Amino acid sequence: MNSATVFGNLQKRVAAVRREIVRRKLDGLLIHDPVSSLYLSGFPCSNSLIYISRSESLFATDSRYITKAQTSITHLDVVLMNRDASAEAPKLAARLGTRQLGFEEQESVRFFRTLQSGMPNVEFHEAGDILRNLRMVKSPEEVAQIRANQKLTESVYKQAISDYKSTMTETVIKKIICLDMVSRGVEEAFSTIVATGPNTALPHAVPSSRRGRPGEFLLIDMGIKANFYHSDMTRTVAIGDKQKLDSQSREIYEIVRQAQELAISKIKHGAKCAEVDRAARSYIAEAGYGDAFGHGLGHGVGLEIHEGPTLSPRSTEVLKEGMVVSVEPGIYLPGKAGVRIEDLVVVTRDGCENLNRLPKSFKFIA
Amino acid sequence: MNSATVFGNLQKRVAAVRREIVRRKLDGLLIHDPVSSLYLSGFPCSNSLIYISRSESLFATDSRYITKAQTSITHLDVVLMNRDASAEAPKLAARLGTRQLGFEEQESVRFFRTLQSGMPNVEFHEAGDILRNLRMVKSPEEVAQIRANQKLTESVYKQAISDYKSTMTETVIKKIICLDMVSRGVEEAFSTIVATGPNTALPHAVPSSRRGRPGEFLLIDMGIKANFYHSDMTRTVAIGDKQKLDSQSREIYEIVRQAQELAISKIKHGAKCAEVDRAARSYIAEAGYGDAFGHGLGHGVGLEIHEGPTLSPRSTEVLKEGMVVSVEPGIYLPGKAGVRIEDLVVVTRDGCENLNRLPKSFKFIA
Repeated sequence: MNSATVFGNLQKRVAAVRREIVRRKLDGLLIHDPVSSLYLSGFPCSNSLIYISRSESLFATDSRYITKAQTSITHLDVVLMNRDASAEAPKLAARLGTRQLGFEEQESVRFFRTLQSGMPNVEFHEAGDILRNLRMVKSPEEVAQIRANQKLTESVYKQAISDYKSTMTETVIKKIICLDMVSRGVEEAFSTIVATGPNTALPHAVPSSRRGRPGEFLLIDMGIKANFYHSDMTRTVAIGDKQKLDSQSREIYEIVRQAQELAISKIKHGAKCAEVDRAARSYIAEAGYGDAFGHGLGHGVGLEIHEGPTLSPRSTEVLKEGMVVSVEPGIYLPGKAGVRIEDLVVVTRDGCENLNRLPKSFKFIA
Repeated sequence: MNSATVFGNLQKRVAAVRREIVRRKLDGLLIHDPVSSLYLSGFPCSNSLIYISRSESLFATDSRYITKAQTSITHLDVVLMNRDASAEAPKLAARLGTRQLGFEEQESVRFFRTLQSGMPNVEFHEAGDILRNLRMVKSPEEVAQIRANQKLTESVYKQAISDYKSTMTETVIKKIICLDMVSRGVEEAFSTIVATGPNTALPHAVPSSRRGRPGEFLLIDMGIKANFYHSDMTRTVAIGDKQKLDSQSREIYEIVRQAQELAISKIKHGAKCAEVDRAARSYIAEAGYGDAFGHGLGHGVGLEIHEGPTLSPRSTEVLKEGMVVSVEPGIYLPGKAGVRIEDLVVVTRDGCENLNRLPKSFKFIA
């Protein structure tokens, strides 16, 4: 899939935004967030404004990007703006007589205050959920890209595990993974986590000069970014042989694996995110490790590595067909060991498609 | 230099913040921005709150980071918080009886509104410039790191140029650069720009399957990230030999080079950023290419690839000893060719130290 086709039907996205504008009785929506902008324009750039009103769709960018934007974007009217977007926005909105303006509340206070002072007669309405909600449900093109990414991620992971030697530090293992990614022409989705022994108990461990020893876990949490979309997976394996691994480590692995499968079995169109989280969380708590699972069960993955929906106890969201979410329970015993297992799934009408193929049965590596 | 020493004296930074709090008659400053947080704590994490009052210094983070934070941070009181920082912040501030609270206006409107509703009796004051100003002036440790980064960047660039073959696409050249970076254990500071021919006229070109041809420019804008700090440089070289290059391309190269040297000669403690920008801009305008230089002359580089100060016509900042700024004029002729030359310099009392060693004289590569 090339970068032009991954975005699918961009006009459809703009039309969906416009329907929401009408439904909310707004005159228009102003977008400055680079990811929202990429989603609607298909054009990657660090400084843009998109203004969608009931009748117009403007894309403004500065001199660094304008030449490329004019040739790349065909479904929005491309206009040149000065570098300071917050000062330019009132001009866009003013010339269209906007009174009720939606904005994305993830914008900075600084940006918003400049907007307000430039548009004294405009009423501002938080509308960041318009794009957030649209982006959660992936098109077939987006799913295809994420599926391909996850497949490639598994391939890089398998290669790293097969290259593994007991002399390798966490940093070296990470380097092997990153070199492989670059060779394949993709980027890291986020800074790859490679942790051994007690470091596996740190959910966001930073690779160090530590080497794994027999009887310890090796945890790798990784993903790639290709054609603007991300992937995400985690596997935990045991180093050495059965005699060296203590029974508690073996136990927490099996609990996490069962909890993950249980959560995945609850996923389908219409399921509540909080209930999917609860399935895994209760299972872990009943096994006596409730305090050892401190983070949410999962998150959406797409143009951002973390996006909606959120699978957590506090989530109020409901799963819909086409959403792509990670499912990643963990048990962390500080100073000792941790286990996390993470798959990426696409929500379907009756269940989900797991984008991972790698087995999760307990595995020893030499 | 290892990651522990790059931050130098963290207590000094906290003390400098506290002096500003007193000077501005605030009770405290609340920090959520991950880069501000890293600067003050020396601890990288994606979710934290730092609250500095006249008498206390708290660092709060969630369960994913708390174990590591407790062992790593010794100059701030480390406390556990729940995942939702905006809901946690009022608790921190309330227990200290805060009434006049500084906050960073780069925070999102969403975050700020949650803060406001959680702290109805608190007056909020924009104070993002406290950290912005502190971060602009680098310590000797920071300068040493950026100097080392720029040296390594030049080394990676030189290798790529020496490996260059006329059959290589922009993407392949970028891949060679990225593989070398990973091999050396560093990351890209930003997505490396490799542009040939008409693509050099796009200041933010994305590498493509295009190959450079004799008589065209090859432009590479690149930097690395190591120990949290960045570097940044750009070189433009001509492909092929003298007979193939037209006289205008040669002309714009020399204009950009002269403009850059002129700007660098204006840099010293006390110089106005706008005047340094003007030196290069006027030179380019007088040579007849004023419209072809649409971006600012430069920016600070540090924990972020773009930070203060800004060298641009609208900048109101004044250079101070210890600031590290890029100097990167360019001339862009859409559809034809572009030239940008970028060095990184450290401002000194009487001038500046150029962190680049690579020559900028006109260069042909085969």
